[in-house]
Amino acid sequence: MELPRKVAVVGCGTVGASWTALFLAHGLDVQATDPAPKSEAYLLKMVEKALPQLAALGCTGKGRLTFTTELSAALNGADFVQENAPENEELKRRLLAEIDAQLPPEVIVAGSTSSLLRSRLIADCRHRERHITAHPFNPPHLVPLVEIVGESDAIMERAVAFYRSVGRHPVVLRREMPGHIANRLSSAVWREAVYLVEQGIASVADIDAAMAFGPGLRWAIMGPHMTYHLGGGDGGIRHYLDHLGPSQVRRWESLGQPRFDEATKQALVEGVAEEAKGRSIADLEAERDRMLILLQLMKKGAAPE
Amino acid sequence: MELPRKVAVVGCGTVGASWTALFLAHGLDVQATDPAPKSEAYLLKMVEKALPQLAALGCTGKGRLTFTTELSAALNGADFVQENAPENEELKRRLLAEIDAQLPPEVIVAGSTSSLLRSRLIADCRHRERHITAHPFNPPHLVPLVEIVGESDAIMERAVAFYRSVGRHPVVLRREMPGHIANRLSSAVWREAVYLVEQGIASVADIDAAMAFGPGLRWAIMGPHMTYHLGGGDGGIRHYLDHLGPSQVRRWESLGQPRFDEATKQALVEGVAEEAKGRSIADLEAERDRMLILLQLMKKGAAPE
Repeated sequence: MELPRKVAVVGCGTVGASWTALFLAHGLDVQATDPAPKSEAYLLKMVEKALPQLAALGCTGKGRLTFTTELSAALNGADFVQENAPENEELKRRLLAEIDAQLPPEVIVAGSTSSLLRSRLIADCRHRERHITAHPFNPPHLVPLVEIVGESDAIMERAVAFYRSVGRHPVVLRREMPGHIANRLSSAVWREAVYLVEQGIASVADIDAAMAFGPGLRWAIMGPHMTYHLGGGDGGIRHYLDHLGPSQVRRWESLGQPRFDEATKQALVEGVAEEAKGRSIADLEAERDRMLILLQLMKKGAAPE
Repeated sequence: MELPRKVAVVGCGTVGASWTALFLAHGLDVQATDPAPKSEAYLLKMVEKALPQLAALGCTGKGRLTFTTELSAALNGADFVQENAPENEELKRRLLAEIDAQLPPEVIVAGSTSSLLRSRLIADCRHRERHITAHPFNPPHLVPLVEIVGESDAIMERAVAFYRSVGRHPVVLRREMPGHIANRLSSAVWREAVYLVEQGIASVADIDAAMAFGPGLRWAIMGPHMTYHLGGGDGGIRHYLDHLGPSQVRRWESLGQPRFDEATKQALVEGVAEEAKGRSIADLEAERDRMLILLQLMKKGAAPE
C-alpha cells in the first residue's frame, strides 16, 4: 500500500496548523489552504512553534509547505486531504462536496469534526466511501489519538496506515457517535467535576489536582477498563464486576447533573483564575506542551515491546 | 509543628502495605497490625517489592518495621494512625472507637475509606476532631493524591503537613462526599466507557487506547477545569462557557446510562482479555508501576518552580 506524500490541509486554524506541522515533520509536502488571506501568517507562526517540539520527539522531516487561498490549487495533485473547517454543518457539507467533486475517487478525504456526524456532512458527496472523519485531540501534533469513522474497511485500513506513518495512534469506531470516544469521556469527567464545584466540595484547583495527582496519572498509562481490571485484584475485571459491580452502579446513580447557572460559571472562572496563579493561556499551553512531549518520550522508551 | 515519627498502620492488605512502605522509605517507624497472623508475610513481601520502587523515586529512608496481631501493641507510642481495615461500616466503626479509646486525643487517626462516610464511622468516638478520612489512590506509594475530610482545620492542617512530608499531594474536601473526588471522576469516566462498549461503538482495547493516547495524557498534567480553560483559546474558560457551554450541556445530556447486564459484563471481560494479550495482573501492575515512577520523576523534573 502506497502512503500519501502530498497532503492538502483545508482550513488553517489551530487544528489545521498543528496537522500541517506534523505532516511536514514527517517529510510530507503540505498544500495548505484557507479562504482568509491572513491565515498564512498564523499558519507560519504556528508551524514555526511546532516544528522544534516535533524535533524533540525525533520528527525532523523536511516537507515542503505551500499556502493558497484557492481550494482547487491546494487540492491539485494531493493524495490525502485533511479538512479542518470551522464546526458548522452547512459550511462543512458544502466544502466536502466541493472537494469531492475535484479529486479522483481514490483520494481519502478526512474531516476533523468533533461533534458533527459524518453521515450528514457527506450528504452531497458522490464518492461517499473515501470520506472519513479523522478527529484528532488538541494539540494534534502532540497528542497521538486520532478517532476514525467511515464506511469502507479498505479506506479505513489505508487511513490507519497513513496516520500510523505520522506517529499517530488511530482508533476506529464501528459506527458514528457525536463526540466519538474521547470527547465523551472528557465531557463525562467534566460534568462530575463541575458538579463538585457547584456543590462546594472543593476548590477548582483542588479538584484539578485530584485528577492530575490521582486518576489522571493512571489514565496516561492505561484506560478505564484496564484500570478497573487491576482494581479487581487477582480476579481481575470478572471479580470486580461480580463483587463491586453493584456498588459501582450505586456510585453512577449518585453522580451529579450540574447546570451552568451564573453562580457556577462564576465559581469556575474565579477558581480557574486562582489555579492559574497569573499564568497566561500561552504560559499554560507551553507547560502542557513540554509535559506532553516528555510523556510521549517516556511512553516510547518505557513501553514493553 | 512537630511531624509524626512513629506511625501505626492498622490493617495490612494492599493499601496498608503500600502505606507502610511509603512511611518506611521516608524514615518513619511503622508499627503494623492486622488480626490475621498470615498478614505479616504478605506485608513483608509487599514492602520488599515497594521499597526499590520508592528508592527509584529518591525515597531511601530506613524506618523500622514491627508487626503485631495485637492492636493495642501497635498503637502503643504511635503519634499517627493510618487505618486501612476492610470497607465495612460496622467493622470500621467498632475499630475506630477502639483506637479512639486507647490513644491520647492529640494523635491523628486517619482512615482510608473510599465510599463510607466519616460522620458515620466515628459515631462511637469520644475525640471526634482527631479523626479524619485520608483516602489514597491505588497504589498509595506511587500515586501522590490523598483526599482528606475532617472537621477541625487545625487537625487537617497537621495532616496536610504530614502527608506532604511523605511526598503526597493532599487535597482537602470542604465536606464529606461518598467517593470523595477522584473515585467519582473515575466512575463518571467508566460509566461512559461502559456505555460505549454496551453500544458497540468500539472495542474495549480501543476505548482504553482513546483514553491513554488522548485525554489521559492531558489529565496526567492538568485537571478537567484547566483543560477546558485551554479549550477556550485566548478567552479561556469564560469564553468557553459563553460560547461552548450550551453544546457541552447537550453532550452531557447525551451521555449514557449503561447497565451491567450479562451481555455487557461478558463484553467487558472478553474485551479486557483481548487487550491484556496474555499479560497477567502482575505483569500489568508491574508495567503500570514502572510508568507511574517515570511519570512522577518527569513531573518533578519538568514542573515549573
